[in-house]
Amino acid sequence: MTSTTSGEFELIARYFQNWPSFHTSNTSIQIPNGDDCLVFKSESPIAISVDTLVENVHFLSSSPAHGVGYRALASSVSDLIAMGAKPIFFTLAITFCKDEVWLEQFSQGLKQAAQDFKIDLLGGDTTKTKLKNASVITIQVHGECETPIQRKGAKAGDLICVTGNIGNAGAAVELLEQTELNEDQHALLNSFYYPKPPAHLLPELANKATSAIDISDGLLQDLLHLCRHSQLQACLEVDHLPLSSAIKNEHDHKQAQKFALTGGDDYQVCFTIDAKHQQWIEDNHITVIGNMQTGLVDIVDTKSESITAQFSKLGYQHF
Amino acid sequence: MTSTTSGEFELIARYFQNWPSFHTSNTSIQIPNGDDCLVFKSESPIAISVDTLVENVHFLSSSPAHGVGYRALASSVSDLIAMGAKPIFFTLAITFCKDEVWLEQFSQGLKQAAQDFKIDLLGGDTTKTKLKNASVITIQVHGECETPIQRKGAKAGDLICVTGNIGNAGAAVELLEQTELNEDQHALLNSFYYPKPPAHLLPELANKATSAIDISDGLLQDLLHLCRHSQLQACLEVDHLPLSSAIKNEHDHKQAQKFALTGGDDYQVCFTIDAKHQQWIEDNHITVIGNMQTGLVDIVDTKSESITAQFSKLGYQHF
Repeated sequence: MTSTTSGEFELIARYFQNWPSFHTSNTSIQIPNGDDCLVFKSESPIAISVDTLVENVHFLSSSPAHGVGYRALASSVSDLIAMGAKPIFFTLAITFCKDEVWLEQFSQGLKQAAQDFKIDLLGGDTTKTKLKNASVITIQVHGECETPIQRKGAKAGDLICVTGNIGNAGAAVELLEQTELNEDQHALLNSFYYPKPPAHLLPELANKATSAIDISDGLLQDLLHLCRHSQLQACLEVDHLPLSSAIKNEHDHKQAQKFALTGGDDYQVCFTIDAKHQQWIEDNHITVIGNMQTGLVDIVDTKSESITAQFSKLGYQHF
Repeated sequence: MTSTTSGEFELIARYFQNWPSFHTSNTSIQIPNGDDCLVFKSESPIAISVDTLVENVHFLSSSPAHGVGYRALASSVSDLIAMGAKPIFFTLAITFCKDEVWLEQFSQGLKQAAQDFKIDLLGGDTTKTKLKNASVITIQVHGECETPIQRKGAKAGDLICVTGNIGNAGAAVELLEQTELNEDQHALLNSFYYPKPPAHLLPELANKATSAIDISDGLLQDLLHLCRHSQLQACLEVDHLPLSSAIKNEHDHKQAQKFALTGGDDYQVCFTIDAKHQQWIEDNHITVIGNMQTGLVDIVDTKSESITAQFSKLGYQHF
């Protein structure tokens, strides 16, 4: 890391240091942050993922800093979980132009997510920009990955599953700037800022799933990646999509389904699994939403009609 | 990583993919980029360092993109080398608001540095900002680190050494916006944009040095870290500082020394070493600039007068 002078040191010390250690693992930290590098040693393969959140692209200037911090980490952790990797540590590169109140709340949200997902903040870089509304947050997560679940690997006949409910975060996007919220709307926004990727399913998920992806851009777009990588077709039972009561109260069925199919930002996991694991699926309140079959790479309904053809956008367009 | 749609995919494919593999090592990439995570396995301890460059803080909007790309990676690699770690791979998180010409030149500079330091680009995230002049570049480097050199570890009597020449980059800062340059000024600017941390000294450096730090902020500020961590005093022979002919042609001796002492941005390595390695030091054109001694943590001259007390700023102030 860049060696730092007192201003940066003090800021880091105040908000990002001396957090308790949340993870338990066999990865040992041989030299902690505070030198030119940190050094770790792991007996396991290490999975890493990098994600950047840009102000007024991925979050709003008016967004609550606590939620921005929580979501920044949780959304990265979901990549680890979709890979079957146990969260171990992350680095944080934050470029900010905010006051210290914002930074404190951001750090508290980040810390809450670190605690929830048992992942340690071990280093990073803190920089200031002179521009307004130009904050950029980059997080790199590191996890132990004995049995990677890839996007390829699905077999014809495998069940398609999703964890949790989906669609809430997509429905929340239009509420982001709204100040007065009813209970259901509050629940939707809460799903947006506090996603809960299913860390509790590890390590079983890694041993059972044949392929997996996190739902960051939208179910259709992300599931299509599984289809492409596995060269299979997904047959979806759209009436089986797990929808929360909040989204059902706020939207008609067709609109709620649309959010679930194309909304993105849910950070749940979509995976494929052999049907012999039906009992484990039920025990863990996971929803079966279809099955993989041979055929052209696409997502179809039970009448073999293309679902993807019904939507102009399958999910979030990055550029 | 976030799953991505065609716009981002195409941009990444055009500028950041299918580079040849530059490194040779025992770290194996089990799953390359293109899934939720990349997965690697290493028999060695892994050193990592994260650094962010912010437009108009760490580089200028008018800076040549090729040089910005080269310097971004070289400055991070210098952290690995100062730790005694062999560069293996890096991730790139780039938030940009530039045209594609900029991006292409940036990627070419980055690739040149990757080749020079034998380090592979394995993943990252590419995002756009709507603001002008708001580019942010975060690089995380990863290296194999069998024998870490820490900031602590210096012994009284150890020689203090620096690699290469220092001061050039500090002297270049005032030339950054100058369009007409003479040969010496061009050489100074070249040192700024194309730093050459001493990768060629590995692995011997790791086996011989007792402590080390990269000179990113300025010799005094960085050497003082070694003093603090090792609880020793540095006695510096300022007339021995390695100065280039370019800086000596452009500046009087006192000013050239000041750049070398406090200028920063050199990305050479300052280290301490037992005097028995004198021959290795000479063979590698490394300069001895003093020695470590017991006493109050400080940097003094050969008359035991404090050098740090003579400067209001010891180096780059981050905030």
